[in-house]
Amino acid sequence: MPEASSRVVKLAVIPGDGIGPEVVSEAEKVLDAATADSGIRFEKTAFSLGAGRYLETGDTLTDEDLDAIKAHDAILLGAVGGVPGDPRLKDANIERGLLLKLRFELDHYVNLRPSKLYPGAPGPLADPGVVDFVVVREGTEGPYVGNGGAIRRGTPHEVANETSVNTAFGVERVVRYAFDLAERRSRRLTLVHKTNVLVHAGGLWKRIADAVAKEHPDVAVDYLHVDAATIFLVTNPGRFDVIVTDNLFGDILTDLAGAVTGGIGLAASGNINPDGAFPSMFEPVHGSAPDIAGQQKADPTAAILSVSLLLDHLGLRDEAARVTRAVEDDIAGRDGALRTTSQIGDAIAGRLRA
Amino acid sequence: MPEASSRVVKLAVIPGDGIGPEVVSEAEKVLDAATADSGIRFEKTAFSLGAGRYLETGDTLTDEDLDAIKAHDAILLGAVGGVPGDPRLKDANIERGLLLKLRFELDHYVNLRPSKLYPGAPGPLADPGVVDFVVVREGTEGPYVGNGGAIRRGTPHEVANETSVNTAFGVERVVRYAFDLAERRSRRLTLVHKTNVLVHAGGLWKRIADAVAKEHPDVAVDYLHVDAATIFLVTNPGRFDVIVTDNLFGDILTDLAGAVTGGIGLAASGNINPDGAFPSMFEPVHGSAPDIAGQQKADPTAAILSVSLLLDHLGLRDEAARVTRAVEDDIAGRDGALRTTSQIGDAIAGRLRA
Ligand SMILES: CC(C)[C@H](C(=O)O)[C@@H](O)C(=O)O
Ligand SMILES: CC(C)[C@H](C(=O)O)[C@@H](O)C(=O)O
Repeated sequence: MPEASSRVVKLAVIPGDGIGPEVVSEAEKVLDAATADSGIRFEKTAFSLGAGRYLETGDTLTDEDLDAIKAHDAILLGAVGGVPGDPRLKDANIERGLLLKLRFELDHYVNLRPSKLYPGAPGPLADPGVVDFVVVREGTEGPYVGNGGAIRRGTPHEVANETSVNTAFGVERVVRYAFDLAERRSRRLTLVHKTNVLVHAGGLWKRIADAVAKEHPDVAVDYLHVDAATIFLVTNPGRFDVIVTDNLFGDILTDLAGAVTGGIGLAASGNINPDGAFPSMFEPVHGSAPDIAGQQKADPTAAILSVSLLLDHLGLRDEAARVTRAVEDDIAGRDGALRTTSQIGDAIAGRLRA
Repeated sequence: MPEASSRVVKLAVIPGDGIGPEVVSEAEKVLDAATADSGIRFEKTAFSLGAGRYLETGDTLTDEDLDAIKAHDAILLGAVGGVPGDPRLKDANIERGLLLKLRFELDHYVNLRPSKLYPGAPGPLADPGVVDFVVVREGTEGPYVGNGGAIRRGTPHEVANETSVNTAFGVERVVRYAFDLAERRSRRLTLVHKTNVLVHAGGLWKRIADAVAKEHPDVAVDYLHVDAATIFLVTNPGRFDVIVTDNLFGDILTDLAGAVTGGIGLAASGNINPDGAFPSMFEPVHGSAPDIAGQQKADPTAAILSVSLLLDHLGLRDEAARVTRAVEDDIAGRDGALRTTSQIGDAIAGRLRA
């Protein structure tokens, strides 16, 4: 395949803070192993971003950073965020200023979060059954837009508001993505919102889902309020195939789903711009866990599974499947023995080379 | 106690829709049994409210209804809401127009939701440990205020917004209630919000909790983002004692907590106006479940435990404790055999009479 052999993928790598650099090293190791014979060359640029950078320079994400990142084909991110309560970070909001800024500026309107309970993975449920679903979380609207404010701050008369913004444009494109995904999976789609309380936003989501559903008569659609959805996630997670939901509900449901499927040490995500106008970004769902940073205690599996999502996004479906398979095999062989972060990465990379 | 013997409690009873009337009957049965020798007389007025009433008259909650209800000392509510998708209810929003209207008009700023895993109760977790916490959910602010709207409705250019309103006044009073409750329990309080994203609302909650915490140096306080809180609810629910949180997060967490502690067939709640300016309202967390209505299939335990909360609120602590004890004993004796709604009510009432 001469064409493929000449393909270069420019990858921006943001190791970030805490355990970020450790898990990203392993993810890169696996990426290299998985693509060694593919003829594709990953040209990686590391970006120093996160709490560490902020403490050094006072910058969170400059226009130059953003422009440089935009010149890449995809992004691999570890985790960002400093030590909670660090007084030097009091005025920084790394989450909003960096992570959410990337998602918004790069129009990552699909936040894709697969939840699969791999055989052998530990989980809190007594009888989980088969769990294998994907949450399609909207990534650029809802209560995440940052359209809030406060008056009389710090006084007994303070009023602090947050506005959730939802557009037909924004909802339709993510709902369409979710239906297309459902067509390629088990053809079951669950819309999650809170239409009985958030009548305007919920009404918009419901009407659009109903309209798009008409174009997909073969997809079985149901609707759950977010509160009820959390119940099913622990009593009958097998009922889900594709869940489509708003930014905040998706945040909540995917952490819970991560816990149900073996912990967020295994939960991967893709922040995707399906139009390809901007690079998509792949990251573990977990945070920077500064308390265990640098100790080789972090599980790099979530970062490694994020590499699988990255490969899939780049059209390298075989390579993506091989990574997932290697992870699956690794998990199946876990016997509770402690392994370091790089031992896990080595083991998974080793399976790919074998 | 001559004083007690002359006490009359005016109780407004709203059986509501679906399984509401069935579970409320059993709750009343238990209330009567628990207070038979207390010298307190409950003067009950039934209010016909809910989807049924709406379909008959077109009314959801009139000013006259509201005035009449306000003249009572407390309210017992079953569940309200019609059959999902009933075209005749298309323009009704029973939840907003009735349930939330009551909570807002009666200034139920504390939505109290205990979560206890009773020995013998079925639950989805393999190893739940001891679970016994209370969620203090704010009831009159947040994204529930109904301050939303849409422009260009039904067009591709629709924008639908929802505004979460949070005030120092509203947050402080519920946070104080939660700290007082923690003082009477295990002195651990967890604030749940999403301060890293909802910086204005979250900032207000955090600052107020920090300030009130200073007045309670003996209460151990921690903070969790709502997404992380859902993880702990399934991996380590024993870590919680009192959770204080906003209206929407409280809605989500308490359904999940209900599932973890044996299902929402057991989850009780009180919508409380601690100032006593308005009657407080006690209701099971579950909905009207129209699909099983009238079949004596519903578990009245949540409604019965709501009676315990009602009694406690009225200062009848012994009676409240006896109801909880009777429920606990009943649950401990459950062997999976099917019982009708009234058989369960009879069994629990029987224990109180014994
Ligand atoms: C860190 C935080 C801003 C982020 C979010 O809320 O989206 C995280 O929880 C996630 O799910 O990726
Ligand atoms: C019915 C609905 C409006 C209500 C809520 O969201 O508060 C319910 O879910 C609850 O928890 O009592």
